[in-house]
Amino acid sequence: MAKIYESVPNISEGRRPEIVAEIVEAMKAAGSAVVLDVSSDADHNRSVLTLAGDEEGLFAASMALFETASKRIDLRAHKGEHPRMGAVDVLPFIPVRGATMADATALARRVGEEAARRFGIPIFLYAESATADNRKLLPDIRKGEFEKLAEKIARPEWKPDFGPSVIHPSAGVTAVGARPFLIAYNINLGTNDLAVAERIGKAIRMSSGGYRFVQAKGIPLEGRGIVQVSMNLLDFKKTPIHRVFETVRSEAERHGVPIVGSEIVGLVPQDALLAAAEHYLRIESFSPSLVFENRLETER
Amino acid sequence: MAKIYESVPNISEGRRPEIVAEIVEAMKAAGSAVVLDVSSDADHNRSVLTLAGDEEGLFAASMALFETASKRIDLRAHKGEHPRMGAVDVLPFIPVRGATMADATALARRVGEEAARRFGIPIFLYAESATADNRKLLPDIRKGEFEKLAEKIARPEWKPDFGPSVIHPSAGVTAVGARPFLIAYNINLGTNDLAVAERIGKAIRMSSGGYRFVQAKGIPLEGRGIVQVSMNLLDFKKTPIHRVFETVRSEAERHGVPIVGSEIVGLVPQDALLAAAEHYLRIESFSPSLVFENRLETER
Repeated sequence: MAKIYESVPNISEGRRPEIVAEIVEAMKAAGSAVVLDVSSDADHNRSVLTLAGDEEGLFAASMALFETASKRIDLRAHKGEHPRMGAVDVLPFIPVRGATMADATALARRVGEEAARRFGIPIFLYAESATADNRKLLPDIRKGEFEKLAEKIARPEWKPDFGPSVIHPSAGVTAVGARPFLIAYNINLGTNDLAVAERIGKAIRMSSGGYRFVQAKGIPLEGRGIVQVSMNLLDFKKTPIHRVFETVRSEAERHGVPIVGSEIVGLVPQDALLAAAEHYLRIESFSPSLVFENRLETER
Repeated sequence: MAKIYESVPNISEGRRPEIVAEIVEAMKAAGSAVVLDVSSDADHNRSVLTLAGDEEGLFAASMALFETASKRIDLRAHKGEHPRMGAVDVLPFIPVRGATMADATALARRVGEEAARRFGIPIFLYAESATADNRKLLPDIRKGEFEKLAEKIARPEWKPDFGPSVIHPSAGVTAVGARPFLIAYNINLGTNDLAVAERIGKAIRMSSGGYRFVQAKGIPLEGRGIVQVSMNLLDFKKTPIHRVFETVRSEAERHGVPIVGSEIVGLVPQDALLAAAEHYLRIESFSPSLVFENRLETER
């Protein structure tokens, strides 16, 4: 069975659809990787692309991405609300099926090294692939943005992992790395009292004492007259969906409020939902290879 | 995305492993279908093969099955505890992914028609593919077994769906049809009182007033000093796993007994576990295409 990854390149172009389309077409033409989603934001002047594929497919798509984006996007002329430092601003690789974080890091290193060599773009390895503490978090790497990066990367502690200690004149620098799958998961509450959703969000998010890999806030769903706990689950293997769900249920109950539903925004790895089924059905010795389709995939 | 089926041929040979191996090898060599399991029973003198594949792969494997089994198995010399009527006794096709019951019936008809034409074996369409009420259930078709079938199929109401109204002299007749996926699912109870498992089995199985698509009985797990509700779920779309689980939980609670675990024997379709996750997490507008791997499969 091939190891499958997601990749979510963020590019610094969200206002010229023809440029975004050209970059997407180049990535599709490069090989077997599949483009699952393209989402552009004009205010941010930024697009988020979602790809899936194996190592070879994503390597080829990444090279096409760097080649086309560095030709068509000039950071010297770029304005937008979102902080940015490169034409390809950030390029994460996410292990989804049959692949480990070490595999994803190996892929990130291979892509970063080759992009630096071919296109002269300085590359920082970030997140799970970071080679030093100061480059684990994107905001730390990106601080100063394109305009001040030239000076920053000349300093020894900001020497890029690959490529020159000089920014690419128009394409800036890029962060490449491995990270866990991010699940956007929201739970809808049977009340219109925003304070309840806000209190629950506070209870479960890391920043105020909750779960390590949860970001959460309360928001109103105006159209439905109810409120929602809106969440990002940053590592579903360590903070699983069902644990978050049960904690939200318990906190809501204390206010006499029921959970009326939940929603997955975007996509979710099969393993995240299988883990929920395993938990609630109390399945002993569970393995994803008990699933018929997975077994067929393995045996082929 | 290719439509994927399971097929579970039962053959009337469980004592000569070299014959079973020859049949399995012929099926593997025929095309792309994958043999997931082979299970022989000497007392029954019968083997159950589990295959997976798309329509073309399973069609080719089925032809190889009929060809090899009808050469190597002679019902005139066959003895065993399990009732039987053919060298290939029964050949079901089960829709697993992307395929409907109507698709599986079309495949069963295609296989049955061609097997009758090539090998002169009378074919009864059974289960969801049956063309008359009297041939829906295997025991009704098989009644009289090989020895009395010659006389039985000469009667108008037992005219085969394909092939001659005369049994194949050595290979008998075969039932071919479409049916839902069978999930073998057991729930372990935190007690050594067999009567509790027996009462719960009775409460949930169809035969004594329970769910339409559940067979169940209570059995002791000697090694662990506990008891188990052992079940076959015959149509998980109509009687889903989580509903059975919750009913067993509720019935066990009335006896003050907890569920300590559950087990899936063999394989389970992804959709059956996704339905459990959807239920417990109360996911709104759920679709299997929210699963990353399924989406990738569709887009490829």
